[in-house]
Amino acid sequence: MEGSHKREHTKARIINKSLEFVKSRSLEDFSVREVSKELGINIASINYYFSNKENLLGEVMKTVWNTSSDKIENIYLEELEKEKWSFVVFFERLFDYAHEISDLLAFAVKHTLSSNLNVDRNFVSIYDSEYPTPPGTKTYRKVFIKELGPHVPETEIQKCIHTFASFLTFDSALQYSNIMDKDRHNLDDHPILGKKARKESFIKMIKYQIEGLRKEFPA
Amino acid sequence: MEGSHKREHTKARIINKSLEFVKSRSLEDFSVREVSKELGINIASINYYFSNKENLLGEVMKTVWNTSSDKIENIYLEELEKEKWSFVVFFERLFDYAHEISDLLAFAVKHTLSSNLNVDRNFVSIYDSEYPTPPGTKTYRKVFIKELGPHVPETEIQKCIHTFASFLTFDSALQYSNIMDKDRHNLDDHPILGKKARKESFIKMIKYQIEGLRKEFPA
Repeated sequence: MEGSHKREHTKARIINKSLEFVKSRSLEDFSVREVSKELGINIASINYYFSNKENLLGEVMKTVWNTSSDKIENIYLEELEKEKWSFVVFFERLFDYAHEISDLLAFAVKHTLSSNLNVDRNFVSIYDSEYPTPPGTKTYRKVFIKELGPHVPETEIQKCIHTFASFLTFDSALQYSNIMDKDRHNLDDHPILGKKARKESFIKMIKYQIEGLRKEFPA
Repeated sequence: MEGSHKREHTKARIINKSLEFVKSRSLEDFSVREVSKELGINIASINYYFSNKENLLGEVMKTVWNTSSDKIENIYLEELEKEKWSFVVFFERLFDYAHEISDLLAFAVKHTLSSNLNVDRNFVSIYDSEYPTPPGTKTYRKVFIKELGPHVPETEIQKCIHTFASFLTFDSALQYSNIMDKDRHNLDDHPILGKKARKESFIKMIKYQIEGLRKEFPA
């Protein structure tokens, strides 16, 4: 039992250090050797726990996914407890959160698009084992059912989630690369790409989606 | 004059071969050495034309951007010539086109998010030199003005383009990585992620955006 605790602790340390690395530099530069050096754990041990770099990065992804899903659920629960529920406020907070973790989202996007990474993506699915769902899907589903009613077909809700979550993820990841690029472009106050403008666009997109679906599937 | 022709021809050959490479494999595996070998042009010459790998990839991006902008404009012109203009048909064709070039879009997304690539992104801007716009922006602008009227504020139109184009690009890129992953997941007929379902979601998203904006900015 003690041995298994120690193993879990070591695994967590390796994942956390790897996470620091992918946040601060590009995915291409990720090096197991450097993680090993920084932690003072030899490469053989890291390989013992994760087999190879791809598996390790897969576990990092999983951690990002789980952490952000929990955070999104918490935002929802906090909003529910307030005197007045507002889906707009929920999505505004969601946008702020995505913006906060834009470095992780940039990593997640690049990781997902790297076809040469052999990762079990099933962990990101809540509906079935067939396809990955974005973090927070379970929460989003509750929000949309709350707004639209339980009679709206499940596929409609899932498609709606796929649409806005794709946009939010990519938008935040892009913002991150723009931040990285700030030596040449200062986009913070840009009328289209600044944070305020993007937040407005995002909220508008959600509002229009919900209005449209309400009309299409009246209670 | 002849020398300059030859130079342009060689540059184009290098760009085209590089494009083939980034389409068929991951961005991380892109190698100037292999491009040089395949073309029988020595590395020194490639460096003479493009200085380094990053610049070469930047030129490849530019080619992708220009080609797809032209293609999108052509779709628009073809639709305009038809007896009945329908923005739905335009966006359906746009979706099909994005799906067709999903390998290039996956490259474009990864390239854009690779913060260590030092590329002049100004070429992708049509409004000003401050920020990059998605390929086709010029055409999209015409489509939205056609649908919403010339009184809708320019920033609203730009934000709308940013929203749907981000979604379309990322969605197609994701689809590409899913195709790459098809050994394990066959998503073609998936009720949420299959091509048909995604096309419907995309069209719905556009419709709701346009409906919402029409209401917000009545003629």
